[in-house]
Amino acid sequence: MSQQKESPAAAVNTPAAATAIPSKYSSRVVLKTILESGGGLGLVGRRVVIGGWVKSSKEVKKDPVVPEPPPPPPPAPVDGVASQTGTRDVTCSEILQSRIPFIRSIIKILGGSNYSVREKLEPAAPRPPPPSLVFLQVSDGSCASTLLVVVDSSVAPPSQLLPTGTCIVAEGELTKSSLEGKHVIELKVEKIRHVGRVEYDKYPLSKKRLPLNQLRECPHFRPRTTTVASVMRIRSALTFAAHTFSQNQGFLCVQVPIITAADSEGFSEKFRVTTGFDNVGKEEPKFIDDTEGVSLEVVKSAIKEKSKIIEDLKRTDSNREALVAATKDLQKTTELASHLEAREKSKQKNWPKADDKASEEFFSSQTHLTVSGRLHLESFACSLGNVYAFGPRFRANKTESVKQVAEMWMVEMEMAFSQLEDAMNCSEDFFKFLCKWLLEKCSEDMKFVLKRMDRNSIERLQSIILNSASRISYTEALDALKKVADKKVERKLEWGAALTTEHLSFLADEIYKSPVIIYNYPKQVKPFYVRQNDDGRTVAAFDLVVPKIGTLISGSQNEERFNVLSTRIKEMGLAGEQYEWYLDLRRHGTVKHSGFSFGFDLMVLFATGLADVRDVIPFPRTYGKVSN
Amino acid sequence: MSQQKESPAAAVNTPAAATAIPSKYSSRVVLKTILESGGGLGLVGRRVVIGGWVKSSKEVKKDPVVPEPPPPPPPAPVDGVASQTGTRDVTCSEILQSRIPFIRSIIKILGGSNYSVREKLEPAAPRPPPPSLVFLQVSDGSCASTLLVVVDSSVAPPSQLLPTGTCIVAEGELTKSSLEGKHVIELKVEKIRHVGRVEYDKYPLSKKRLPLNQLRECPHFRPRTTTVASVMRIRSALTFAAHTFSQNQGFLCVQVPIITAADSEGFSEKFRVTTGFDNVGKEEPKFIDDTEGVSLEVVKSAIKEKSKIIEDLKRTDSNREALVAATKDLQKTTELASHLEAREKSKQKNWPKADDKASEEFFSSQTHLTVSGRLHLESFACSLGNVYAFGPRFRANKTESVKQVAEMWMVEMEMAFSQLEDAMNCSEDFFKFLCKWLLEKCSEDMKFVLKRMDRNSIERLQSIILNSASRISYTEALDALKKVADKKVERKLEWGAALTTEHLSFLADEIYKSPVIIYNYPKQVKPFYVRQNDDGRTVAAFDLVVPKIGTLISGSQNEERFNVLSTRIKEMGLAGEQYEWYLDLRRHGTVKHSGFSFGFDLMVLFATGLADVRDVIPFPRTYGKVSN
Repeated sequence: MSQQKESPAAAVNTPAAATAIPSKYSSRVVLKTILESGGGLGLVGRRVVIGGWVKSSKEVKKDPVVPEPPPPPPPAPVDGVASQTGTRDVTCSEILQSRIPFIRSIIKILGGSNYSVREKLEPAAPRPPPPSLVFLQVSDGSCASTLLVVVDSSVAPPSQLLPTGTCIVAEGELTKSSLEGKHVIELKVEKIRHVGRVEYDKYPLSKKRLPLNQLRECPHFRPRTTTVASVMRIRSALTFAAHTFSQNQGFLCVQVPIITAADSEGFSEKFRVTTGFDNVGKEEPKFIDDTEGVSLEVVKSAIKEKSKIIEDLKRTDSNREALVAATKDLQKTTELASHLEAREKSKQKNWPKADDKASEEFFSSQTHLTVSGRLHLESFACSLGNVYAFGPRFRANKTESVKQVAEMWMVEMEMAFSQLEDAMNCSEDFFKFLCKWLLEKCSEDMKFVLKRMDRNSIERLQSIILNSASRISYTEALDALKKVADKKVERKLEWGAALTTEHLSFLADEIYKSPVIIYNYPKQVKPFYVRQNDDGRTVAAFDLVVPKIGTLISGSQNEERFNVLSTRIKEMGLAGEQYEWYLDLRRHGTVKHSGFSFGFDLMVLFATGLADVRDVIPFPRTYGKVSN
Repeated sequence: MSQQKESPAAAVNTPAAATAIPSKYSSRVVLKTILESGGGLGLVGRRVVIGGWVKSSKEVKKDPVVPEPPPPPPPAPVDGVASQTGTRDVTCSEILQSRIPFIRSIIKILGGSNYSVREKLEPAAPRPPPPSLVFLQVSDGSCASTLLVVVDSSVAPPSQLLPTGTCIVAEGELTKSSLEGKHVIELKVEKIRHVGRVEYDKYPLSKKRLPLNQLRECPHFRPRTTTVASVMRIRSALTFAAHTFSQNQGFLCVQVPIITAADSEGFSEKFRVTTGFDNVGKEEPKFIDDTEGVSLEVVKSAIKEKSKIIEDLKRTDSNREALVAATKDLQKTTELASHLEAREKSKQKNWPKADDKASEEFFSSQTHLTVSGRLHLESFACSLGNVYAFGPRFRANKTESVKQVAEMWMVEMEMAFSQLEDAMNCSEDFFKFLCKWLLEKCSEDMKFVLKRMDRNSIERLQSIILNSASRISYTEALDALKKVADKKVERKLEWGAALTTEHLSFLADEIYKSPVIIYNYPKQVKPFYVRQNDDGRTVAAFDLVVPKIGTLISGSQNEERFNVLSTRIKEMGLAGEQYEWYLDLRRHGTVKHSGFSFGFDLMVLFATGLADVRDVIPFPRTYGKVSN
């Protein structure tokens, strides 16, 4: 091995010190292992190497009355990043002490000791700054607490360590804290092994708490804040909880495909997947003969109108049949506009042909990013029994929403030999399990959430664990809403209409003040695959609606009867050929089965009490620019 | 609740029978819970409801010598799927017994009792078929074993139950098996609750074992085969093992984005993500003035040649700088061809303009499906310490390979405060952990693999657990290969060349006969972000190469020095702006860090001994048509 490895933590120990805390795959000790039990008091006297980023800092001059030790040797160079400009940042106090009268007077004129300038590093005038102690609150992201790290100015230049965001690797002894306050212990540093400095005029974070919307501008740095770090640890815990529940209950994990030709709903806007080097001239437009007299302007204004109708339909959580129809209609109109536009400009005969270009496509059929994994999962349920998937799902929905972005992670579960009620029971157990997991395995982060983000967070989780959701049919939900004389819920309350997000919120937030399961929806508001009930007008679908969050879970017993499903596909005008494989599952060895989709990102929102789903997703994807 | 639920398993018990095995979210008992301990002998006497699919079957006529019981009442209708044609399938023996001389003679002429025909169901001639016993081997996908299910013809018509693939839900008592052979117990059925029949002329599976390549044609049914079901259970176990290792070691799970603008390598072919309704006229071609005299035919033949060069470069596991350059070159040439073609056909001035169409795009910048999550993961490592991701990654590679498809799942791990050796250690521990998990938690499926798929499977896993991989530098690997006088490895063995897949195989399969870690590669064969070693010509990258599999793990210590990284990005001609956020991590609080990517699908291949990765992925995506 040509590369030198730093000595591991164990090697730092002197015989007198207690055994070092073991650390794998690094020479540093993870802070969580130091801080997790009683703030680390039991570890006083141990020698460790730690690493982390400075969250806040202060420098305290050493008491001048106390006789000073002889001037220390200049600090040893540390394993850090060389300054890129040949300069180093110095604080005003350093400069004021430097006794260069000229610079001092300029600084005084500029007025303010918070001001700092760049000073050429020159071999001359190596007069050391006065001795001081630097107190750093250091986090390594493993837990919400910070370690207090104390560095004497003789060990490393304070100006290098003080800025928020600086990375340090430090070696020393854990002692009782010399400061009053939240810290029980501190690390008395004897050697700084590494400093990763900060260009503080460009660094987006600071000691101050920044609002979440401002943090969204720098997704690559925001987990360095205590809030986002806690959210991400909670997210990680929930990921493991989801797998643990599923595997403990005998569900098999299936990685359903992301690229797909299947459309699980027929009304979602989808992202297409393509490989052409450029898209010019790929599809030859099919010119429609009877459009000669149609004006492009008329068609364009029709597009605007139709887009508006679709937006309206979507806002109401959709009458889905109407939405499918409207979407198709818009698509046709848009195509017409393209053709008219193309014709105007190219005079038809000069349009480039598809030819060889088509062969550049990777897939010969049109593919897109999956909207839901449930259809694929069904095929595995109809052979393996109980299965689940956990992966990203995609909707190219341009409407702004604090509950939805383009790329979201879902947990989907599907069970053969089961019915609507089984799926409801399973989904509720799943939800309860995740809540319990957070209280048991994430207590430190949940306490942080309670203290700094949402006072009701823990109570809310406990309430889910202790109580079951009310279960009401769509018809009962409608009746309950009709009784309320409230303007918010007045609109469109005939039987058969979709419940809007306002309706759902009102039910969970105002009427029940707890999670509610609504089941047996009118068939026109649910996807084609949901099993039709015997009444001929409702289907075996359900939603679990949670206060403040909205629909966290959507589930259904899916249609297992070949004829009924096949008829429904035709009724809804869906492309039959595309669903042959799906119909196959009913053609051969069909069985009753049910399942659900669980909005994983919304669960993180529920746990943390945050309002915007973009704050709980590592790199959220929304309408507009993607910069990383 | 308007929907009637079948009585749960518990309700089936008579007071005399033992307690029913509890079953959640279904009225059936999962077969694994019956069969897993000693074949289920301890459960004799219990009454259960089971569900599953018939894997094979036989019908045995009851002994005619024994005085027959009075003819049973016609079988009660079962909760099945109505025949779609008003017919039911009958076996020849039924027909022969039916004493309709005409049909009988036709059957005899057709010659063969394995032949079956469709008979109109008519109200007349309801003469019952002679009594028989049906023996079914039923699987529900929960384990490799089947349950022997015995149904008297008085309980359900045999012809409905016999075809492979039929789904049944059956209620009865577990008894000692009446047949000699592998089954210790059997289910004596008293009631068939559901039959999901098979259109056997269309059903792709049969009692016979089909070759894997044939099964690939029906990914939605193949988990009904014992082999693919075992593979999928092993895959699921490995998924949970991956999360368990990571979480136990204190790694936080991060869902890195699938849609991205970042390019982690610069040489992979990527899938673009788009939302335009159609792609016509989206980009206005930039016509190059000095191409007037250039012939389209010449350019087209240049494209062919250049494509060939790229394929050659790829086959050698790439000199990546050369590959980047060649890919760019081809892209330019292809663009030129497009322009020439377009010009020929549209005479330039009639080309349609972009205009309003551009506004249809969801993202204003060009986005594609992620090739690797490591860059994003680094940003979280540089704030949270140890992190991992587990998700789908995409390469639009048209070259056929049994080790790669377009969509593959990867585990990626990234650690702050760590170096090359730490990543090697962690990745090896991870690999060992997965192997151990399979032996401990998947023993039944691993025994099946041993027996039916690969005799070395268990020994291979044990060998990984007990031994560590040899670690050799690239230079040492080259020396070892040079010593071998073998035609396979002769080609291009100067220092600096990439090792081909043949070279790697030779090292692992022939020279070391065990996994090998190769590290410190020449910088030109690894991505821009790998840390440069002090020798100025190698970088801190490594690959873990496994016999028969090839590269299972690729890892590296990544460049933490701003200036070095920034220079490298420029050197390689990568778009600087795109990497500003990535450089930011070095600008502010940089730290040494390392990590690796683990080919999850290849691990399933390794565990099962299969040769083609398409056989271990639920719905593999390869060049060509996607039908679901």
